[in-house]
Amino acid sequence: MIKREKVVNILQSTVFNREITVLGWVKTFRNNQFIALNDGSCMSNIQIVVDFANTSEDILKKITTGAAISITGQLVESLGKGQSVEVKATAIEILGESDAEKFPLQPKKHSLEFLREIAHLRFRTQTFNAVFKIRHKLAFAVHQFFNDKGFVYLHTPIITASDAEGAGEMFRVTTLDFDATPRNEDNSINYKEDFFGRSANLTVSGQLEAELGAMALGEVYTFGPTFRAENSNTTRHLAEFWMIEPEVAFADLEDNMNLAEDLLKYVIKYAINHCPEELAFLTNRLAEEEKNKPQAERSDLDLMAKLQFCLDNNFERLTYTEAIEILKRSKPNQKKQFKYLIDEWGADLQSEHERYLVEKHFKKPVILTDYPADIKSFYMRMNEPDEQGRKTVRAMDILFPGIGEMVGGSQREERLDYLKTRMGEMHIPEDELYWYLDTRKFGTAPHAGFGLGFERLVLFVTGMTNIRDVIPFPRFPKNAEF
Amino acid sequence: MIKREKVVNILQSTVFNREITVLGWVKTFRNNQFIALNDGSCMSNIQIVVDFANTSEDILKKITTGAAISITGQLVESLGKGQSVEVKATAIEILGESDAEKFPLQPKKHSLEFLREIAHLRFRTQTFNAVFKIRHKLAFAVHQFFNDKGFVYLHTPIITASDAEGAGEMFRVTTLDFDATPRNEDNSINYKEDFFGRSANLTVSGQLEAELGAMALGEVYTFGPTFRAENSNTTRHLAEFWMIEPEVAFADLEDNMNLAEDLLKYVIKYAINHCPEELAFLTNRLAEEEKNKPQAERSDLDLMAKLQFCLDNNFERLTYTEAIEILKRSKPNQKKQFKYLIDEWGADLQSEHERYLVEKHFKKPVILTDYPADIKSFYMRMNEPDEQGRKTVRAMDILFPGIGEMVGGSQREERLDYLKTRMGEMHIPEDELYWYLDTRKFGTAPHAGFGLGFERLVLFVTGMTNIRDVIPFPRFPKNAEF
Repeated sequence: MIKREKVVNILQSTVFNREITVLGWVKTFRNNQFIALNDGSCMSNIQIVVDFANTSEDILKKITTGAAISITGQLVESLGKGQSVEVKATAIEILGESDAEKFPLQPKKHSLEFLREIAHLRFRTQTFNAVFKIRHKLAFAVHQFFNDKGFVYLHTPIITASDAEGAGEMFRVTTLDFDATPRNEDNSINYKEDFFGRSANLTVSGQLEAELGAMALGEVYTFGPTFRAENSNTTRHLAEFWMIEPEVAFADLEDNMNLAEDLLKYVIKYAINHCPEELAFLTNRLAEEEKNKPQAERSDLDLMAKLQFCLDNNFERLTYTEAIEILKRSKPNQKKQFKYLIDEWGADLQSEHERYLVEKHFKKPVILTDYPADIKSFYMRMNEPDEQGRKTVRAMDILFPGIGEMVGGSQREERLDYLKTRMGEMHIPEDELYWYLDTRKFGTAPHAGFGLGFERLVLFVTGMTNIRDVIPFPRFPKNAEF
Repeated sequence: MIKREKVVNILQSTVFNREITVLGWVKTFRNNQFIALNDGSCMSNIQIVVDFANTSEDILKKITTGAAISITGQLVESLGKGQSVEVKATAIEILGESDAEKFPLQPKKHSLEFLREIAHLRFRTQTFNAVFKIRHKLAFAVHQFFNDKGFVYLHTPIITASDAEGAGEMFRVTTLDFDATPRNEDNSINYKEDFFGRSANLTVSGQLEAELGAMALGEVYTFGPTFRAENSNTTRHLAEFWMIEPEVAFADLEDNMNLAEDLLKYVIKYAINHCPEELAFLTNRLAEEEKNKPQAERSDLDLMAKLQFCLDNNFERLTYTEAIEILKRSKPNQKKQFKYLIDEWGADLQSEHERYLVEKHFKKPVILTDYPADIKSFYMRMNEPDEQGRKTVRAMDILFPGIGEMVGGSQREERLDYLKTRMGEMHIPEDELYWYLDTRKFGTAPHAGFGLGFERLVLFVTGMTNIRDVIPFPRFPKNAEF
């Protein structure tokens, strides 16, 4: 057993003048005397005071940034500024050296782009220590929220043979050999020879399977990886990302909106309560970053204030039809500043429109409901046509400032005849989804659910601006490093 | 908003003679009078008393097994046996019918094999309600355990370009077209044209990436899906399964064993405390199942007793070398009853040997350590050769009764020169794992970790015997249904 105390605990200790052992990585070493040591347990370092006179030259020269060392010494109250405790070293052991010529993380400011290239080392920076602590706490809060409510966490399949959802381009999963592909008589690929005996892909969503769970267990949620083989090189898209997808039987769209708003507020509040040090650091980081921006592009609120603002205000709820009216009359539409001008009902909303509604018009999170059926998925519940005969579905999107779509959901179409009609119109073969239709044949009931993109949540809470900086090892076109 | 109360809450209610609304699925309908209604919130049903005389024939005939209904009525204390409360229905609404001729889950005993074929409906049985509630609680307990200890949950990548771990056959992830595969001049596949610009696979383990996290954040864990493209049609293997992989800096093998034993005991205890109804049901189920077995194959302990036994006893810890001595001298080895006889040091242990040690010799969970280097992975820490010059590594496997290997782990090789030598011997290219080697170049330190197969844990705790029955939609050769 390796004896050690964690820095996070030492910093809170009030029992002084006792011997402790602490292991960690050297952040800085000043004046051959003061080591700032970090062991990852918190963002803060512990100050180690080296007895310069009684420490060998060989040891001293190996106390370099990035080196792993073991310190035994006396824990004492600190007289220095900026820390309450420090350790007077009596024994120093070098565990692992770090060549100052080669270690890329010297104590200076590094760009996020550079750090992305050394994603295997960027965890050692304060920024990424904070980001991944918050990511952890948000994930834990998600589980706690649903567990407290009696939901069942369902691991829906990652590999699926179903390609009927139409949520986007998919990755093929195969064990077939490109150089010796089994063929049918008509020269098409014989997928019967593939591992699963059929063509298989990575899932784009666990929703359909989650519905199966909800129609028996009542309230379920997924939290797992989902995939899009889309050639999107943006700060908002990943090829591999994590989604949270609750699905609730005996619930309608209003229940669904309430659940989503409660969840978002719960997890943001959890982060505020459990990551004060990390959020204070990231609030400063963002403020520094914004100093380089023109005044007009800076946020009105700093990061902490923005999070608190979300908790203190109800999300604005309105229909797509109401939103279109607002957008039509809006200044950027009138002045033709939108790239895509809003001139008629039925248009899909672009990021610029969502941002206008959230950031300019309402200045808070917005829930848009009842979108035109033509721009939404087959499984969303059809509303009665309005007086003008326009068809909408019981969908909802939650839009967040700086993020855009955070949540997409709907009340599901539980009526077998409506569902079959929609599937027919959208050329979705019924036999491929027989299991989905069975839930409508046997004891169908109103139900609803949504998907929350976890990385977008982490983006919002950390104030980071590129989604590749909030997942440990991002996957995107032409990149699967590490 | 749909007004309803959940059955789990109603059953605990002590406020009677009030009107409530409850929605759920009909389990049985006796004598045109008593409905057993379930909404998935717990295994138990609520009894609904129908006012036969004042209910229309049309409604009565639609109250069939599997139908979804809404009941409004008075909550009253029950005079009947087996329940404390019941609802005297004043209004019944049929939400979704269930044709008795077609609904496959009629109230009778179904085989697990049959239920596997209708995995989209099996959640509606008591057995699978219990299994998936326990699976949920175990997953939650895992997160709670690590969160309480200050670990960071790390989402390691699912799609990886690294194929150097040698943990098993992998699935290819690709967007290339079998019919128009891009080729290099030498006719080999041009993976530069593939989505990630290189050949990519589904991960077999998040360990190597978790190590990167641990060497900065100190204590991390993964909990995500992993994959094996192995043609194993057994009750113990899946092509897609969930793994928990903690990784701890400044820890040796003893710390690692302690962590694993603590984790297993914590989550088993959590299930006992939070799933009493489910475990009582599954204990009976297993006892019934075992009645069909010959006496010699039945367990000494029932399910609950077996779980409690795990909590009450320290896991037996011994080295591989000690285990080989026990096995050599064992009766089944002497009498040549083992399929693979143990005659010399160095042999890989088979399931029969592990079962003998756990189920016959020690009669409790066993931790085997210090396996021969030749049968273990490159990243495990090399021990000093013993007096006979035999090379072992600081590995550990935790073996559980009825399950076999539940956990596999090791102290990791933190010494760059040892690691490079091993990689060379095992033909693992250094340049593919440069990022892994960097953690040994810059501030290396002792660290250790392990992998826990989540489905094997669920198997053990639920007493189910086929791994395909403890994951919602199992993936195995020739099967990716639902």
